[in-house]
Amino acid sequence: MTSFTNEYPCRAYGATSPTSGVGPMAITRRGLRADDVLIDITHCGICHSDLHTARNDWGRTTYPVVPGHEIVGIVSAVGEAVTRHKVGDRVAIGCMVDACMECSHCDADLEQYCLSGGMTGTYNGIDRRDGSPTYGGYSERIVAREEFVLKVPDRLPMAEAAPLLCAGITTYSPLRTWKVGPGSRVAVAGLGGLGHMGVKLAAAMGAEVTVLSRSEGKRGDAGKLGAHAFLNTSDKAAMKAHRGAFDMVLNTIPVRHDVTPYLHLLKIDGVQVLVGMIDMMPELHTGVLLGRKILTGSGIGGLAETQEMLNFCADHAVVPDIEVIAISEVESAYERMEASDVKYRFVIDMASLAAQ
Amino acid sequence: MTSFTNEYPCRAYGATSPTSGVGPMAITRRGLRADDVLIDITHCGICHSDLHTARNDWGRTTYPVVPGHEIVGIVSAVGEAVTRHKVGDRVAIGCMVDACMECSHCDADLEQYCLSGGMTGTYNGIDRRDGSPTYGGYSERIVAREEFVLKVPDRLPMAEAAPLLCAGITTYSPLRTWKVGPGSRVAVAGLGGLGHMGVKLAAAMGAEVTVLSRSEGKRGDAGKLGAHAFLNTSDKAAMKAHRGAFDMVLNTIPVRHDVTPYLHLLKIDGVQVLVGMIDMMPELHTGVLLGRKILTGSGIGGLAETQEMLNFCADHAVVPDIEVIAISEVESAYERMEASDVKYRFVIDMASLAAQ
Repeated sequence: MTSFTNEYPCRAYGATSPTSGVGPMAITRRGLRADDVLIDITHCGICHSDLHTARNDWGRTTYPVVPGHEIVGIVSAVGEAVTRHKVGDRVAIGCMVDACMECSHCDADLEQYCLSGGMTGTYNGIDRRDGSPTYGGYSERIVAREEFVLKVPDRLPMAEAAPLLCAGITTYSPLRTWKVGPGSRVAVAGLGGLGHMGVKLAAAMGAEVTVLSRSEGKRGDAGKLGAHAFLNTSDKAAMKAHRGAFDMVLNTIPVRHDVTPYLHLLKIDGVQVLVGMIDMMPELHTGVLLGRKILTGSGIGGLAETQEMLNFCADHAVVPDIEVIAISEVESAYERMEASDVKYRFVIDMASLAAQ
Repeated sequence: MTSFTNEYPCRAYGATSPTSGVGPMAITRRGLRADDVLIDITHCGICHSDLHTARNDWGRTTYPVVPGHEIVGIVSAVGEAVTRHKVGDRVAIGCMVDACMECSHCDADLEQYCLSGGMTGTYNGIDRRDGSPTYGGYSERIVAREEFVLKVPDRLPMAEAAPLLCAGITTYSPLRTWKVGPGSRVAVAGLGGLGHMGVKLAAAMGAEVTVLSRSEGKRGDAGKLGAHAFLNTSDKAAMKAHRGAFDMVLNTIPVRHDVTPYLHLLKIDGVQVLVGMIDMMPELHTGVLLGRKILTGSGIGGLAETQEMLNFCADHAVVPDIEVIAISEVESAYERMEASDVKYRFVIDMASLAAQ
């Protein structure tokens, strides 16, 4: 059922242990199945998940691991049954490369929540057909099933498009789920890769956007990104004055923290959506929820919504602020991310891999 | 601005300290203001809040306190400007007796979340006009502003109507907010005063209702109340088999507990509504929320929604299962409530007060 002919040797960057760091390695991409697309990767964004996985922070890493799930590139070959893409197309791959495509969630365009074993991660996953490990976008090329390959609209520059595949869709999806639009008052907590996209996307959808930060130094950045207001969460009087002010708090803060202050900022039936924290959430008093405040979370979006997001970004000229680096700089980029020293997303120029 | 003529001396039951217990006392009801209604109380339901307040469990009780906010009775006098009610009407009062009626929440029929100092509680509150303490329904009569007096439809028996004013509206409101109806799959956790109303109301709205309990002994009760299914939460295999099965979990459990197992039972975009727990909620891992599971809470409903609920219960013949007691039995009723030894709500027959 599977063809292993014409395998593709492939230069990549990956980790071989929690302490190895990310460095050059050779991997092999499978020969094209009938529904596969081969992509020459031009750029790959760097997500916090990459460094957590490389270092096994979540205890779920299988080594060797090649991170990267914000992938853009050009189609260089297609399997015999492929109809969606052709050689030369500008395409992208996000956080998943497969799902069962038959369960009720997949049928509802929610492949990210596939009921049959979950989505297949772009890296640190297991191929559903041959059981081999999946390797991500820190690599010169990748092979994936055509349905999981998105189209990059012509108006989107390739480097800037890369972070949309994770940071973009992760913020776009909850804004759509909760019907943000003109008249909505949205607050964005955390101003990193996800947060800065949340600000841009919510503003492009017509919402009035406020950046929440405990650091007054972010006020200027918030304005540059298109936020209409800034609220210093360390200012107790200001926080009290904004109780009940927002329809949504998009909480992109990636570390463990108390979400109670943000619940207080919500209107009745307002919602706080967690998209960054993957951790135990501290105790909170249910009294604040009893005032019909909603707490939820969200992961990435499905394939159709991800394509919709790419098209939206092209139509509204929404792109992330990026810093392009060579692949040899990944480890130092990780260190700078941990120090919040990036505005706002690192993107690897994959041409630098050929120069290795 | 306020008339204190014709004050009404009034027999009541109340507590004078956290340890006094609830016993006979004499109070005075204010003379009727122009917009006031005097009600001869026929019945008053007993809510868990009553015993918590009588004993100052929440640290917010001002003594003496007369509990009771599930009040039904007959109008016996009206102020000169009253238009909504007339002598002889069957009426009810729930958890609130006043609000500003001018803020955006009051304008939106959400008086329970009044932005101007909050709603005025039926007991242990402070009258907005004269600063006097409010006393509840363990009493032969009560005076309240006409807007806060609801109509009891003819088809509802008075004793059974009483618990609708708190247990009924507290479960009805979230079922409406989250649009439960035919096709909805609703699970009810906790089978006390609130839970048993949740089962009956959700079933009357056309939902498929499952009772969640760790006690197999509740299976038979669940069926008698109209639930379509029972899920033993101690049965790990059954809980796993029901992952993603419900649109809503109506969580009426009144004590501190981990809500995570109930989040797992939700479909994507399903909601767990807390209506019972008023406490610190234990830590939970955000991973479960990231699958677009919603956690929220809800208090009582507004005036219009409470009247709607009373009408709904009359139209659908939904009434609580009650045990009618004499007012002298309140303390023993409290003890039995703490032992979950009531099916499902105690209601005081206020005629027993006259016999004191």
